[in-house]
Amino acid sequence: MTVTKRIEVNAGKPYSVKIGKGLLDKTGEEAKALGLDGKALIISDDNVAALYIEKVSASLKEAGFEVFSFVIPHGEGSKSAENLIAILEFAAENSFSRTDTFFALGGGVVGDLCGFAASVYMRGANFVQLPTTLLAAVDSSVGGKTAIDLQAGKNLAGAFYQPKFVLCDTDTFDTLPDEEFSNGMAEVIKYGMFCDGEFLDILTENNTDIESIIARCVQIKAKVVEADEFDKGERMFLNFGHTVAHAVENLSSYTTPHGSAVAIGMAVITKAAIAMGKCENEALEILIELLKKYKLPFECPYGVDEVFEVTLKDKKNAHGKITLVIPTGKGESVLQKCDYNELKEIITLGLK
Amino acid sequence: MTVTKRIEVNAGKPYSVKIGKGLLDKTGEEAKALGLDGKALIISDDNVAALYIEKVSASLKEAGFEVFSFVIPHGEGSKSAENLIAILEFAAENSFSRTDTFFALGGGVVGDLCGFAASVYMRGANFVQLPTTLLAAVDSSVGGKTAIDLQAGKNLAGAFYQPKFVLCDTDTFDTLPDEEFSNGMAEVIKYGMFCDGEFLDILTENNTDIESIIARCVQIKAKVVEADEFDKGERMFLNFGHTVAHAVENLSSYTTPHGSAVAIGMAVITKAAIAMGKCENEALEILIELLKKYKLPFECPYGVDEVFEVTLKDKKNAHGKITLVIPTGKGESVLQKCDYNELKEIITLGLK
Repeated sequence: MTVTKRIEVNAGKPYSVKIGKGLLDKTGEEAKALGLDGKALIISDDNVAALYIEKVSASLKEAGFEVFSFVIPHGEGSKSAENLIAILEFAAENSFSRTDTFFALGGGVVGDLCGFAASVYMRGANFVQLPTTLLAAVDSSVGGKTAIDLQAGKNLAGAFYQPKFVLCDTDTFDTLPDEEFSNGMAEVIKYGMFCDGEFLDILTENNTDIESIIARCVQIKAKVVEADEFDKGERMFLNFGHTVAHAVENLSSYTTPHGSAVAIGMAVITKAAIAMGKCENEALEILIELLKKYKLPFECPYGVDEVFEVTLKDKKNAHGKITLVIPTGKGESVLQKCDYNELKEIITLGLK
Repeated sequence: MTVTKRIEVNAGKPYSVKIGKGLLDKTGEEAKALGLDGKALIISDDNVAALYIEKVSASLKEAGFEVFSFVIPHGEGSKSAENLIAILEFAAENSFSRTDTFFALGGGVVGDLCGFAASVYMRGANFVQLPTTLLAAVDSSVGGKTAIDLQAGKNLAGAFYQPKFVLCDTDTFDTLPDEEFSNGMAEVIKYGMFCDGEFLDILTENNTDIESIIARCVQIKAKVVEADEFDKGERMFLNFGHTVAHAVENLSSYTTPHGSAVAIGMAVITKAAIAMGKCENEALEILIELLKKYKLPFECPYGVDEVFEVTLKDKKNAHGKITLVIPTGKGESVLQKCDYNELKEIITLGLK
């Protein structure tokens, strides 16, 4: 049995992320040790709830919590305004106070929705993340970004809100479909690509446990978030590969999984950087090796014009400038602001 | 013409509150001077929009803003989840970015709703308060509390979110119904009662302009909020008279205006404090004099049992304790935690 890893995150009030086997059984104990008590609202999706909600509920009851649950259908469609309001009304009907606690049991959709609901319920109830996917473990469960989708686009409403703690039970990955695991690995590889060449070497080997891999990603993300909690600068490095990824997701009408889109986006921007003479070949070689190893795509199925056009429509492009993360070598990158002409050139080079 | 007053608030990023005649015409100029630009979304209610939206819109256009507006029906019913979501979708459809600005033109309902929408739109767009009622000017427009009502109760979802600036154009009070003015005066008297005896003396005289009165209230509120932005302690003083006030509003099915309810609540708690030997008679005398002067009620039309029962149901009472603000003299008060038995005794004394 592997040892539980523990990482401290110093954003807002410091909190810890624990990663290990069998941790869901310790949810109640952990919460109690941090001084939480009263009512617990477990938010989960139907898939995850069927497998794990009993375990979490039993642990919380054992620790003295009065436990409620709210289960949403699985899938991105649940990250809606309707579900947000329904959760808030449910908490209010059951007389939750702001000293009570919301638990997100699931992947990114559950975490984002639950975190946003907790952040606004009575202007801020307690919030705990229990990620059950690799993607949520290395990405959305750390950093405090919460959100819902609007009709007009993804993640358009939300809050910066840090959890009281994060428990990542790696036993839950045993029930993940292979594709979901690959999805998570795309974000894992991303961390290596933008800032940690040694991690890329570790990932090419086969002797590392998943707990260590997650811990390394969480450490990197924690450092980035600590430097830039409210997404004004440093945090942009986390978007490595994501500009083209968003276009690919959009052009596929969101049938391409996020991880596959990020994999393609990383390959495109790395090719472009090499073509511009800004990056060494080695970075692309190890990226392609890793994408192949984890069964991720790297060829973009769309043309320059359509990728460019969709990127322009992206709501995040303020004032005609876009910031790209440009790789400069294996595990190294820089931020580069570019206008729309430069962006089109870069996309063109990356898609050649 | 009176001079414009200016108060600095140091909560979150510091911002200024300006109070004076004709300030709505300067909205665009003020916004531009602070570096705001791009799109402006004016949120207002039908009553206020009919009178002032053209003025604000013209000022913003003059300063180079692209101006949009979203008008809600007047009244507390508009502080709803439905309107929150409708505003967010409207901003998204019109491609607002988080560097654009939401302007709340109206009273407390508009300010609370608009502020909450701004706080969550792309995790935080810019926000400006243009209060057009005395109540909003001295109370809700300063301090950063934003909210919507849920089915289960008032202000149950919201955020702490500070505006970029507040412009209070006292010309807008000329169109306020007398009852609305009295409503605001109840909160004005509250500031004097809990911490400023000299202000109570000023209020009994007839030679003070409304700008100075508002400025003094904003100064007091700013000091309290600076000490306790997230409502963990000091800010509780602002609830002077509000425990019984909430019960009165609830028992009247919200037909008693907030100001009248606060007036009654202040009278009840001050009587109770005197009966307990904790407060001098002088405090009650000046309170009653001021309530009469501003045509506010001070007799509670409800009995001990119903007031107590409704207070118990108040969702804010965490863990069986309630914090009351107890007057100890003219312009002086203390916080006192009490359990439900003590609360019932105090209500009984106050209603005798």
